[in-house]
Amino acid sequence: MTDTLIKVDLAESPYENPNVHNRWHPDIPMACWVKPGDDFILETYDWTGGFIKNNDSADDVRDIDLSIVHFLSGPVGVEGAEPGDLLVVDLLDIGARPESQWGFNGFFSKQNGGGFLTDHFPQAQKSIWDFHGLYTSSRHIPGVSFAGLIHPGLIGCLPDQAMLETWNKREMDFIATDPGRVPPLANPPFAATAHMGRLQGDARAQAAAAGARTVPPREHGGNCDIKDLSRGAKVYFPVYVDGAGLSVGDLHFSQGDGEITFCGAIEMAGWVHMRVSLIKGGMAKYGIRNPIFKPSPITPSYNDYLIFEGISVDESGKQHYLDVHVAYRQACLNAIEYLSRFGYSRAQAYSILGTAPVQGHISGVVDIPNACATLWLPTQIFDFDIRPNASGPVKMIQGGVDLPLSPDLA
Amino acid sequence: MTDTLIKVDLAESPYENPNVHNRWHPDIPMACWVKPGDDFILETYDWTGGFIKNNDSADDVRDIDLSIVHFLSGPVGVEGAEPGDLLVVDLLDIGARPESQWGFNGFFSKQNGGGFLTDHFPQAQKSIWDFHGLYTSSRHIPGVSFAGLIHPGLIGCLPDQAMLETWNKREMDFIATDPGRVPPLANPPFAATAHMGRLQGDARAQAAAAGARTVPPREHGGNCDIKDLSRGAKVYFPVYVDGAGLSVGDLHFSQGDGEITFCGAIEMAGWVHMRVSLIKGGMAKYGIRNPIFKPSPITPSYNDYLIFEGISVDESGKQHYLDVHVAYRQACLNAIEYLSRFGYSRAQAYSILGTAPVQGHISGVVDIPNACATLWLPTQIFDFDIRPNASGPVKMIQGGVDLPLSPDLA
Amino acid sequence: MTDTLIKVDLAESPYENPNVHNRWHPDIPMACWVKPGDDFILETYDWTGGFIKNNDSADDVRDIDLSIVHFLSGPVGVEGAEPGDLLVVDLLDIGARPESQWGFNGFFSKQNGGGFLTDHFPQAQKSIWDFHGLYTSSRHIPGVSFAGLIHPGLIGCLPDQAMLETWNKREMDFIATDPGRVPPLANPPFAATAHMGRLQGDARAQAAAAGARTVPPREHGGNCDIKDLSRGAKVYFPVYVDGAGLSVGDLHFSQGDGEITFCGAIEMAGWVHMRVSLIKGGMAKYGIRNPIFKPSPITPSYNDYLIFEGISVDESGKQHYLDVHVAYRQACLNAIEYLSRFGYSRAQAYSILGTAPVQGHISGVVDIPNACATLWLPTQIFDFDIRPNASGPVKMIQGGVDLPLSPDLA
Amino acid sequence: MTDTLIKVDLAESPYENPNVHNRWHPDIPMACWVKPGDDFILETYDWTGGFIKNNDSADDVRDIDLSIVHFLSGPVGVEGAEPGDLLVVDLLDIGARPESQWGFNGFFSKQNGGGFLTDHFPQAQKSIWDFHGLYTSSRHIPGVSFAGLIHPGLIGCLPDQAMLETWNKREMDFIATDPGRVPPLANPPFAATAHMGRLQGDARAQAAAAGARTVPPREHGGNCDIKDLSRGAKVYFPVYVDGAGLSVGDLHFSQGDGEITFCGAIEMAGWVHMRVSLIKGGMAKYGIRNPIFKPSPITPSYNDYLIFEGISVDESGKQHYLDVHVAYRQACLNAIEYLSRFGYSRAQAYSILGTAPVQGHISGVVDIPNACATLWLPTQIFDFDIRPNASGPVKMIQGGVDLPLSPDLA
Repeated sequence: MTDTLIKVDLAESPYENPNVHNRWHPDIPMACWVKPGDDFILETYDWTGGFIKNNDSADDVRDIDLSIVHFLSGPVGVEGAEPGDLLVVDLLDIGARPESQWGFNGFFSKQNGGGFLTDHFPQAQKSIWDFHGLYTSSRHIPGVSFAGLIHPGLIGCLPDQAMLETWNKREMDFIATDPGRVPPLANPPFAATAHMGRLQGDARAQAAAAGARTVPPREHGGNCDIKDLSRGAKVYFPVYVDGAGLSVGDLHFSQGDGEITFCGAIEMAGWVHMRVSLIKGGMAKYGIRNPIFKPSPITPSYNDYLIFEGISVDESGKQHYLDVHVAYRQACLNAIEYLSRFGYSRAQAYSILGTAPVQGHISGVVDIPNACATLWLPTQIFDFDIRPNASGPVKMIQGGVDLPLSPDLA
Repeated sequence: MTDTLIKVDLAESPYENPNVHNRWHPDIPMACWVKPGDDFILETYDWTGGFIKNNDSADDVRDIDLSIVHFLSGPVGVEGAEPGDLLVVDLLDIGARPESQWGFNGFFSKQNGGGFLTDHFPQAQKSIWDFHGLYTSSRHIPGVSFAGLIHPGLIGCLPDQAMLETWNKREMDFIATDPGRVPPLANPPFAATAHMGRLQGDARAQAAAAGARTVPPREHGGNCDIKDLSRGAKVYFPVYVDGAGLSVGDLHFSQGDGEITFCGAIEMAGWVHMRVSLIKGGMAKYGIRNPIFKPSPITPSYNDYLIFEGISVDESGKQHYLDVHVAYRQACLNAIEYLSRFGYSRAQAYSILGTAPVQGHISGVVDIPNACATLWLPTQIFDFDIRPNASGPVKMIQGGVDLPLSPDLA
Repeated sequence: MTDTLIKVDLAESPYENPNVHNRWHPDIPMACWVKPGDDFILETYDWTGGFIKNNDSADDVRDIDLSIVHFLSGPVGVEGAEPGDLLVVDLLDIGARPESQWGFNGFFSKQNGGGFLTDHFPQAQKSIWDFHGLYTSSRHIPGVSFAGLIHPGLIGCLPDQAMLETWNKREMDFIATDPGRVPPLANPPFAATAHMGRLQGDARAQAAAAGARTVPPREHGGNCDIKDLSRGAKVYFPVYVDGAGLSVGDLHFSQGDGEITFCGAIEMAGWVHMRVSLIKGGMAKYGIRNPIFKPSPITPSYNDYLIFEGISVDESGKQHYLDVHVAYRQACLNAIEYLSRFGYSRAQAYSILGTAPVQGHISGVVDIPNACATLWLPTQIFDFDIRPNASGPVKMIQGGVDLPLSPDLA
Repeated sequence: MTDTLIKVDLAESPYENPNVHNRWHPDIPMACWVKPGDDFILETYDWTGGFIKNNDSADDVRDIDLSIVHFLSGPVGVEGAEPGDLLVVDLLDIGARPESQWGFNGFFSKQNGGGFLTDHFPQAQKSIWDFHGLYTSSRHIPGVSFAGLIHPGLIGCLPDQAMLETWNKREMDFIATDPGRVPPLANPPFAATAHMGRLQGDARAQAAAAGARTVPPREHGGNCDIKDLSRGAKVYFPVYVDGAGLSVGDLHFSQGDGEITFCGAIEMAGWVHMRVSLIKGGMAKYGIRNPIFKPSPITPSYNDYLIFEGISVDESGKQHYLDVHVAYRQACLNAIEYLSRFGYSRAQAYSILGTAPVQGHISGVVDIPNACATLWLPTQIFDFDIRPNASGPVKMIQGGVDLPLSPDLA
């Protein structure tokens, strides 16, 4: 039986668990050590450490203090790992906890982080997804169910001091260009809610003040939110510190490309079964700067898609230069408009795009001035036929059920 | 035997062919008419009308006047089509001409259009790809061959006058924000090289002066360069004028997501076999603003990928805000660096990314400040194993062959 | 432009074409020679040499003299090929003739060859399938269309004298065990309708008297009717004679596993584009007795199936011992019964199973006394939903159209 | 948390567990009841009830009394189910027990059941497969690992009295045609080792004497050993008795088409999470005689195959009439011969064909006198390249490790 090296108690605050941390810093002590070739299991909190509840109110999504995220399990030290190596991680399996067979998806209020379509969905909303073995469905969104493409939203190795300084300088300089922006341009270190694992005393205080926030993906991987980094995948991570220091969390039962709803995918607590090995000196041998990976041979095989195009002209008709971000937003809005014709509320449609195994492709990026992005919506996840036909759409969803919404407090 | 409604003679200038045009304008007369339910064949020039030759010099890529592109076959009038309808186009088959079983890929000089990585590849280069039935390979790039994902880079219906004016205003206002930029922000109407099909006299002169250039994708589709709009796909196009006016050209034997090399995919002359039908009033019924489509059931099934990540920190270390364009560029550069370890020149690697059925995914767009993009490189297109392993890469490509390069003229 | 080494004129009898033959014999002269590495095109007749017509009568299916089949193009000599080599054949592309964009499927009368379900369909019937680019549909079977999985039903190299004698002895001994059986156990050599290619005079007469019929698959491949040997595949054939002597014919636009209707798949005239190379001594090196192959990366991707089970208890309730043939017949009959609930005639359903990309799997062969076979019916080829649901099937096909039937003549 | 309705203790004899049975009989009492729409979990023994051990001796495979199999969990009663209904079973998930992360594969001695290739492998052999999350590998077979296609080998509903009598008469009549055969033609009822679940007393004795053995697949499904009935699949079972009486067991971590090794796939103890619902009167509505099913959207996506052909001429050169069983055996033998060139023992190769997600297709069944069957071997499961090339195979497996063999006792 494979050893569970890190356990978490969902009834306990993650701040009480010394094998959890929510900042990146080279001084965080290893929670445990393994050898190359070992396989082992780590349990994880959901990214909010249990703040979001399985209920029918979006108050928790509205009220969460986002400086607490993400609660990661680790770091795991790997014997013999040295800076410049590649740490090879086989994601042997990933699952939800038996006692926690559900996840959440939501939209943050624009005042509290927002999301990809925050101007269109400026207030807090939430949907709850129940897991039925390999499948999931939501009591807030009828007519749709799908197999999970289970993956960690966040995984990577500890930065060294130089990398950490690069991150902090780069992002703080960036914040300084528009410090009052809502949502902010980036998140600076913030000691008050930092959880530095086993680190104690002055060392802890110093590290908490400088530890990088976990929100963005960076050179080491981190919060990539790549849906295809799913169970069964093999990942090659850059190593920056002795022992590598691998941490993981923010598990998703499923997610669409872009994680557009930000809060987030279908977020869950769970466990990761993985095996580690090393390619000594692999960063230089292969010219690696960011992680690379091989996808899993076991993923949902939905292959019938309806594909929506978007170009880099924004909602107001304004031209942007080869801007894929704008183009993908248009593709998403086009899909939401389309789904509304079948009876979905726009919030339900947005949530489907954020949770189902939707693909987002960078289709054209050179035809000035318009980028072209495509959103691939799998048709087989719907209980009814969503393809266009000559007689027009049938309103299959009759309303009466929608995502809970919690207005901003004055 | 299906009728070929538009024929082209590759030995003749496209300007001599009245069933070809290279601008978008509602006054371009229909080249021919069909009924809903009809299937028919259109022959097409390559996008440059034969300017780029099957040889070992990039001089043509350097010297081309890009104001001549794209030479489109059409417009085809569809009886009964009215503004607000959806024109359903089944791409029944697409192929190269028997006498022209080759295509080209290249990088424009930065002074003449550039490309996605123009700062890294600032000079004109070219590779020639020979077709062997379903497959292609290049004498300029050893060790790689793949099945074609054949598709039109450019297809769509004529705009009406209001749409045309929207395009022209939007893009000329945009150009005005930085009129001296090289490459330019967008391309304004340009009468000197306009080909307005059958239009003659004053009407022609007026339309040529106002006709929209064909370079960008726009609301009607147009130059989307979506590799998945491949033969076997079904596309739903917005109709703006009576008769719809469907035109097509810029055929590609294969392309990677993004068409990053700009000149372009594997560009070819050929033919398109299609069937048309109508969804009356379909734009309003389904809330359609841009085309939507269903992909083909017959596409290359390469499913073993090596995936490269990129984040929105640019080559100089500068932070960009959730910029997928920057992130995808980093993923591409990471893949080029990786492939160079197997002996490819960087130009060869760039060309592979532009031509092979490479996927580009918008993986994360909400984790401030970094977008995350992924480039999916199919491993099965290489004659050798490109996956990482503990002993490091073997230099399989021994050099001696590279893409022709033509330096800018003083 | 690739050379077409063998041309056929569909208006001419195949017996007039010296580059065609319909028997296997080592003395048939090479029709042409190629070098390893060459690619070339061969045109082919349909397997009956044009006997079956594009009309609405099954008289031709009833009346055909099956001793004339199959008309093959070749043999092609490959320089340097010797007995014991493997001939590597890349099926670069396969297609129908531009002037012959249709094919046929039928059931032979039980008195004239029968088929897999001949006791259930004892009389001659026929359906005609029109090709629309990559797709096909039949005026005799509404509600179904699909992309072609184009392949040669018959391809292989000439036997040597010893192999030929093995075949003839084996099959004639077998016929002798029940010489009066209808349909017969096997087909003996038959000189009257033999076409021995360029062979003339006494040599021709001798070879015609001994030439093996082309009906069964044998050690060299031959009439395997493997739907997955499709365009894009790579095949490794045993070589028995100097020059190999590769012949091909019996092209199919599409076929289900088993080619259960026998007459046959969607049979067509067309052309094959192929490239040949050699693995010297490959039969011994790899222990090859029958051909092996790698499937194409480009095949129809229908992946949503309804799967029917069958066991080796026959229609009368009789037990058979691990008999996959009986089990697959039951699975086919179960599928026909099922499809009839949607309004299809049983003949239409049988034809769908014979022509569409249906899979037949050997699911269990050890659980005495019952073998278990499964028939995989792709649901995406139907215009309507054929999956079971709680309210029962809707009769989507209203009748009025069926396969022409020609009763046996007295 | 989903209820586990049937629990099994692997340390306890299955004969002690009243919710387990090893015969089919309508009088076996329901172990538990559920409602349509319920989802629930059943734990199961491996098919031998724990007789085969995780060790390096094949003595247990040689010595097992096969009259004890298969130990099934159930029957589960479904409220409202009546004869003639279809019981819809969603296989929501399937897994191994945390404390039992391994399975076995073996060949029975020809004296004790044999297998598909028993004349070639007449003695007892065994391999042990360890599970690593989604993957498995064996210490007895180097160089190969793959993702599991987890499925129940055996699942189905209780027969009614008439169906039971049909089975018993059919099979006992069949045995009577060659009663001394080794292995036997079929297995008659056998009371001595029967486990009739909760049934007690005289009723138990009568039922044990008449209960059908669980070895063959039959009209109700049963021991179909269909690898594609995997987790995520949806199955429609005929109902014969009030309450349906669904039982399941014989879980496989993975299996090739045919389960050719008979002992068996990769056999394991585990659990099944399923949901049930009803189609009232569905057997008549849809014309259902055997179960039908829809495959899972989540299965291993190995898509690069090397395909071996076999025809119905047996090892001795004897002709068989369209016999798919013989043809598939030849394809298997061809694959074993091929794999031996890379260094595998023939027993290792045989075990790979029995355990990996190998496909067996019924390719041609009408070309008299030869059936053609194909065996599809996924190339991506090997650590090295098994495809043919011009230089011949490299012996990658160096021997020293093989399957334990236990000779028959005198």
